[in-house]
Amino acid sequence: MSASPYVQLEQEWRRLHALSGALALLRWDSAVMMPRGSAEVRGDQLAALETEYHALLTAPKITRLLDRAQANAAGLNDWQLANLREMRRKRDHAIATPVSLISRLAKATSRAESQWAVARHENKFELFAPHLQEVLNLVRDKAALLGQALNLSPYDALLDEFSPGLATTEIDAIFKVLSLRLPGLIREAIELQARQQLLPIAGKFTTARQRQLVVEVMKAIGFPFERGRLDESEHPFTEGVPGDIRITTRFESGDPFTGLLGAMHETGHAMYDVGLPKEWADQPVGRDRGMALEESQSLLLEMIIGRSRAFVQYLAPLLEKQFGVSGPEWAPENIYRRLTRVQRSLIRMDADELTYPLHIMLRYELEKDLLSGELAVKDLPAAWDEGMAQRLGIRPTGAADGCLQDIHWALGSFGYFPSYVLGAAIAAQLWESIRLSEPEVEAQISRGEFTGLFRWLRENMHGVGARVSAQDLMKQSTGHPLSAAALLRYLEARYLENSD
Amino acid sequence: MSASPYVQLEQEWRRLHALSGALALLRWDSAVMMPRGSAEVRGDQLAALETEYHALLTAPKITRLLDRAQANAAGLNDWQLANLREMRRKRDHAIATPVSLISRLAKATSRAESQWAVARHENKFELFAPHLQEVLNLVRDKAALLGQALNLSPYDALLDEFSPGLATTEIDAIFKVLSLRLPGLIREAIELQARQQLLPIAGKFTTARQRQLVVEVMKAIGFPFERGRLDESEHPFTEGVPGDIRITTRFESGDPFTGLLGAMHETGHAMYDVGLPKEWADQPVGRDRGMALEESQSLLLEMIIGRSRAFVQYLAPLLEKQFGVSGPEWAPENIYRRLTRVQRSLIRMDADELTYPLHIMLRYELEKDLLSGELAVKDLPAAWDEGMAQRLGIRPTGAADGCLQDIHWALGSFGYFPSYVLGAAIAAQLWESIRLSEPEVEAQISRGEFTGLFRWLRENMHGVGARVSAQDLMKQSTGHPLSAAALLRYLEARYLENSD
Repeated sequence: MSASPYVQLEQEWRRLHALSGALALLRWDSAVMMPRGSAEVRGDQLAALETEYHALLTAPKITRLLDRAQANAAGLNDWQLANLREMRRKRDHAIATPVSLISRLAKATSRAESQWAVARHENKFELFAPHLQEVLNLVRDKAALLGQALNLSPYDALLDEFSPGLATTEIDAIFKVLSLRLPGLIREAIELQARQQLLPIAGKFTTARQRQLVVEVMKAIGFPFERGRLDESEHPFTEGVPGDIRITTRFESGDPFTGLLGAMHETGHAMYDVGLPKEWADQPVGRDRGMALEESQSLLLEMIIGRSRAFVQYLAPLLEKQFGVSGPEWAPENIYRRLTRVQRSLIRMDADELTYPLHIMLRYELEKDLLSGELAVKDLPAAWDEGMAQRLGIRPTGAADGCLQDIHWALGSFGYFPSYVLGAAIAAQLWESIRLSEPEVEAQISRGEFTGLFRWLRENMHGVGARVSAQDLMKQSTGHPLSAAALLRYLEARYLENSD
Repeated sequence: MSASPYVQLEQEWRRLHALSGALALLRWDSAVMMPRGSAEVRGDQLAALETEYHALLTAPKITRLLDRAQANAAGLNDWQLANLREMRRKRDHAIATPVSLISRLAKATSRAESQWAVARHENKFELFAPHLQEVLNLVRDKAALLGQALNLSPYDALLDEFSPGLATTEIDAIFKVLSLRLPGLIREAIELQARQQLLPIAGKFTTARQRQLVVEVMKAIGFPFERGRLDESEHPFTEGVPGDIRITTRFESGDPFTGLLGAMHETGHAMYDVGLPKEWADQPVGRDRGMALEESQSLLLEMIIGRSRAFVQYLAPLLEKQFGVSGPEWAPENIYRRLTRVQRSLIRMDADELTYPLHIMLRYELEKDLLSGELAVKDLPAAWDEGMAQRLGIRPTGAADGCLQDIHWALGSFGYFPSYVLGAAIAAQLWESIRLSEPEVEAQISRGEFTGLFRWLRENMHGVGARVSAQDLMKQSTGHPLSAAALLRYLEARYLENSD
């Protein structure tokens, strides 16, 4: 008796999953271990594996099996049905974009990425402009094709790749609420903090000791070092597959918090992966539900928890143990003030959680206009600087701390930026529910215990995988559709409380 | 105009080369970086990539293109013709073994490998015997199928995978000469050395400093650190592809020579890869000419050069600089005596170069008898111990330092062992020619200069790739077919000279 079409599909996906795990390792190695001169060889390997992956995913066999499994769907349970739906989604996305376009985009972004680095270093947008134009043209083609296939507007089609089900309608609603309240909230917080004393810290924090501190915290959180690694790279990231998760961070010798919070951000991603349903690990329904939910997990740990009074309570003695530091500047309250300082600044990656959404909204508007053609590439720097002045009241000194600061567009990642703010909103909404149903969670965290937190997350979010949409997941786990309300409540509580 | 069949084949091989590079990285990572608990996930990834590789290599398209390219071979140059021949060789090997057998063998060797470790640890052959039997049965099937397809005896078919063109006829001839002379030579060398003073060394040699020493020596040799890495692993090995070569070694805190000579062995493999013809890097004709030639390059650096008076002259000041050691025990002559000490010992991997061939000859006889069925698995320990007593005059104390010491048979690698002695013979024959045509080579090495050595090797061996057979390569580069004569001359000169 031969296997049913659905079972055959699961087998096909096991191969795809193994190939994508190999790809993940190759990418991790490129950023962490690979000798500098080996980039070209690695590029060929990645391209060959990606081509193979795409060929397997778009093979006529898959289409045939999907149709036959759909016709025989009566006997499938909820998980299997959801898996079938996700398989079709993956295949629809892959087949909408011809291999030739993918390959041209890969080459264009590879060139654009290296020229972006040069242009940023020399602070000259005109060095990057022709490459951005080339990438933009190809992304437009891709967005048009995807949009046609998925019956979505071009920009929504790009969003759908990153965060399925969270489109411009949802984003606009959330951004509108935030843009009404945040400017005032930022002003009030800055005024309030100006009246609080913040003692500076100083010292030399060796990488070895910082690493020990980070490992201790990660172990407390539950990171599975027997099936994962912590390394260093220029920018922190998470790679790998369930069963072999690899995160990185970047240590700064004068500041023990950069490396720690970077690692906590990535540990958030990793713990999501760890909590996904194990029995579906090699199937699409067993994967994360898109980048907005991914970012919610990293921001929950890095921002909401990592900068909370409860966590700082746990952290202060660890800092003393590891670095021998003490005195009033290392008291929990001073560390808390340092980690929650609000400041209008030019660089997104250094921004605090209160001003951060404004950085994203600017990019969201600009990338939509670039895609539609309303904004010409040559006019990007002026539009950027104007947007920063309007939103944050400060002006970049040049392209390097203006529109050249982020790598995303060079990589063709249009539609990714909103995930960060969606993630913050999701994180705040989840956190509100967690505190309601686990009233002890903050007391636990102040003792370095994270079991209550992750019990809730696994039951209500991680364990769901991609079985339901992000919107349904939010309704089921928090009782409400996603909105900006919880995020605003959380930000007001944290930044407007009178703590002195 | 569509590409010619030959050009299409080159394109196909570019993909295969990229996939095999990805496989190499996955294997490297498994041994050097991977968390212990991730072995199963990695196993799935390796299996998926190997299946993909095998499917591409044995696809009807390749056979069709090979036939059409052969029919149109008139316009091809020597390199292209040799490339076509090597492509067919790869395909013939791959297609002779059905995927189902490869997959059963992979599973059986995976089980056997872990049980081998247990059995060796507990010193109990009976724990390993059933697994060896299972592997042996499958290897027999494979050897029979390969032999049929290649018109070779089963054992010669296995040898052909490792060292094409060097079969039992060549091996028997070389082993016969060696077995006649070596026992006497060993006796004489041991008597001679007993009359020489050897001062013991002592000290603590940190891994960090040993690493610095090894890196300095590897740089002098020419290892391309911008396209390669040095790491640590339980057993030293070389992995990767030209353009991204990764070697490992194992440091011992009480002895600075183990880590250095292990690294030099692997650097020998790496330099072969580095010297292969770059324009053919992703084609079969641009690869190494089999494992005997590979081992010749590692043994040339580790044994012939790394234990020479010239090299020790260069090394002694480096040891002093790195570890602050001095005194008569660190004088070049005492180091040389230490590195060339001859001793009848039980463990192949610790054996000196004079007794080493006897260890291999025993394994060669035993594995042929196991394959043919003349020797039953249950009788292996007794046969091993008897063979050691006859050849080296010593008896293992148990299976752990007897027939369980090597991993090769657990991995199904029957036919590999002879490569080590063939490699030693090739190395000695090459070295004789190098010294004739580059009379300054030893003086250069004593100053840490290796350019003359590698100029000769690139011109006469590395740069040839797999264009000609190993035998023709030896004739062209040394003027003689491969024999044991040069090896015996070299061993007699080194071990019977009167140096005190």
